[in-house]
Amino acid sequence: MLVLALDVTDRKRANEIAEITSKYISAIKVNYPLVLSAGIQIIEELSELKPVIADFKISDIPYTSSLIAEIAFDSGADGIIVHGFAGSDTVSAVKKVAERHDGEVYVVTELSSEGGTEFMAKHSDEIVEMAKRIGVHGIIAPATRAERVRELREKAGRLKLLCPGIITQGGSIDEIMKAGADGIIVGRAIYSSPSPEKEAEKISRLVQGCLKKYK
Amino acid sequence: MLVLALDVTDRKRANEIAEITSKYISAIKVNYPLVLSAGIQIIEELSELKPVIADFKISDIPYTSSLIAEIAFDSGADGIIVHGFAGSDTVSAVKKVAERHDGEVYVVTELSSEGGTEFMAKHSDEIVEMAKRIGVHGIIAPATRAERVRELREKAGRLKLLCPGIITQGGSIDEIMKAGADGIIVGRAIYSSPSPEKEAEKISRLVQGCLKKYK
Repeated sequence: MLVLALDVTDRKRANEIAEITSKYISAIKVNYPLVLSAGIQIIEELSELKPVIADFKISDIPYTSSLIAEIAFDSGADGIIVHGFAGSDTVSAVKKVAERHDGEVYVVTELSSEGGTEFMAKHSDEIVEMAKRIGVHGIIAPATRAERVRELREKAGRLKLLCPGIITQGGSIDEIMKAGADGIIVGRAIYSSPSPEKEAEKISRLVQGCLKKYK
Repeated sequence: MLVLALDVTDRKRANEIAEITSKYISAIKVNYPLVLSAGIQIIEELSELKPVIADFKISDIPYTSSLIAEIAFDSGADGIIVHGFAGSDTVSAVKKVAERHDGEVYVVTELSSEGGTEFMAKHSDEIVEMAKRIGVHGIIAPATRAERVRELREKAGRLKLLCPGIITQGGSIDEIMKAGADGIIVGRAIYSSPSPEKEAEKISRLVQGCLKKYK
């Protein structure tokens, strides 16, 4: 599964890239830079092409986290991303909202950036346990640290495991899929390419090849 | 210092409450529920009344975190809130953007919710050290745990310390100000009151009284 991280900030360009790559991707991940620039309506627009995962990295108290999740699902999102480090009450609150909307919840274990090793990596095993206990749909693990993906995959049981941090941040597709990822999240390598369509096609083929080899 | 947490989702109501309470508050804190519902322009509108702190609890990789901070300051925010838990590279990236805009950065140490004790509280001392090292403006500490406010205050040196979690979540103004807070962040107790104006006035007077008593 290839998820497009649509981190452009222009509404028109976002729709264009989503459209020309839609044949090759399974879902579109939107983050705050796009949603704040283009308005929350962008989720509805994009969801006509592909399921949209709202990467809002929710990390607030349960009350506020529920409100944020509610807005995302009301706006047409199919899935939402919440930070495990915010605690189990926050993850449960988001899960509850997602259930009402028949939506999916993904829990961040540790960020793919260097800072993800400072505090989060020390708890990501516990965060996976919590995610399983609460019964979310999947976890987000760092493509920049294949050994962590392997370890988290082992602990994650039947949870889906998606990895951002591929290519631009240094993660290798083959290595990450071999480590057990169910899918990768790719942004800049696609939308900053001279031909987002061709790049999406190429990466999608690589992912399919890996799924055959390793799954 | 009394900060109004303006967590309503209706643009008109947000402006009304901000206006009638503006005499009694030092700043307005906006969070995603309002900004996603009313649009990012709400920051500009409110900033005509009072300085606005964008409580975006930024917790992404540095690249994305910078983009989010940039949008907040470009939209008229005076300050921004970032999660210490995201790591020092993220906090530094947000600080860099804030500096260009002459803006303030507040770092969350631990959430005021129960979940804040699961992972964050184990690192909030380190997070304060990091916040000092990076040279941000202040930290956010939980009014629901006065003993932690006291400990974090001691470590925080000259950083401002603001506390959410007052009244509705159970924190006591007197106890928290005595523990060393420079200000409190109050939302529901004001905006859900039959008279937000009177409630803001009352709380503001209590905070002023505490500042005289304890500072």
